[in-house]
Amino acid sequence: MIHLPGVPVPLARVIEMLATLPGIGSKTAMRLGLNLLSRPASDSKHLAEALKTLHEEVGFCETCGCFSEQGNCQFCHDVKRDTDVICLVEQPVDVLMMERGHGYRGCYHVLRGRLSPIDGIGPEQLRLTALDRRVEQGINELILATSATVDGEATAHYLANRYQHQDVRISRIARGVPEGGELEYLDEHTLSRALDQRVNWDTAAL
Amino acid sequence: MIHLPGVPVPLARVIEMLATLPGIGSKTAMRLGLNLLSRPASDSKHLAEALKTLHEEVGFCETCGCFSEQGNCQFCHDVKRDTDVICLVEQPVDVLMMERGHGYRGCYHVLRGRLSPIDGIGPEQLRLTALDRRVEQGINELILATSATVDGEATAHYLANRYQHQDVRISRIARGVPEGGELEYLDEHTLSRALDQRVNWDTAAL
Repeated sequence: MIHLPGVPVPLARVIEMLATLPGIGSKTAMRLGLNLLSRPASDSKHLAEALKTLHEEVGFCETCGCFSEQGNCQFCHDVKRDTDVICLVEQPVDVLMMERGHGYRGCYHVLRGRLSPIDGIGPEQLRLTALDRRVEQGINELILATSATVDGEATAHYLANRYQHQDVRISRIARGVPEGGELEYLDEHTLSRALDQRVNWDTAAL
Repeated sequence: MIHLPGVPVPLARVIEMLATLPGIGSKTAMRLGLNLLSRPASDSKHLAEALKTLHEEVGFCETCGCFSEQGNCQFCHDVKRDTDVICLVEQPVDVLMMERGHGYRGCYHVLRGRLSPIDGIGPEQLRLTALDRRVEQGINELILATSATVDGEATAHYLANRYQHQDVRISRIARGVPEGGELEYLDEHTLSRALDQRVNWDTAAL
């Protein structure tokens, strides 16, 4: 409960809800609430409508687990996509991030989590049965695009083991210096990995 | 229009509306939208309800111009408040800021703007007729709490002139070093004003 002396209750309700969002503190929430109040009522109403239908209209693809508006998602539906390549990610949002790059034309599989013994998340909590089926049906490559954290790395290791005897190429997204990264500000782990996994100039210049 | 490849339309609608809020860019809006989607549907619905009623339920006090839920606001209604002292501010939000301080027990008057010749805002665009009436009815003090900007300062000057022949004490909120302010990082104008308007130690220590 935020202390809001003098703030009318209807505005306080909006501010309190906004302050539950990540990265929005009580001051920012107040600024946003006041901004909405100072704008035409239709703006708040449009946002209200969009929020009301959000959960009703956005579901998850039964095949890959991406966001979808009905049944299969746009990626599984897209005949131009290569169904023989599956990029494995942790969350639906990771798919959106991958799509920002414009380069990838394969399909996805969303785990909806990652292995985390501390939080009690084992393989049975992840969307692995669906992935097993897809791998068994035959694919060329499984790209492990879990995050570069301890848990993400452990998840990638687990999956590489799980499918090692299947007839599928298993790859991991590259680790190294991020675009625009200055060596001076990089941590030593990133830098030594970038050195270890250096590629030939012809490949790098691609 | 934000470019959101792979984002379902209902989610994109929420993200686009959120991105119109001040200080919320497209990346933050996406994070907020995804956060809402990952939470129970009831959270989005509560925020939607609060937004829908926001403009309907929050109005402005006819006397002072503060936010109010019906007719007169809580300050004009409050019998414990000193109606002989009026603190003049630019916007309703300034009242909320003043109330955070807990010290002030007088009333308010909101101009709903400040003089700004560049934007074509003259005295007739401000809530001055209502203030004239309140001053004529007799008050002890009018505290000019417009902001310390060029326009705010000009507005304070204008008001001090407007009411100089009335039987009312006119004061201006103090200017100087803000709480916690280190001299090293202050601008020279603030510092010279803090020096010019220095107060006796007994007063300062209050």
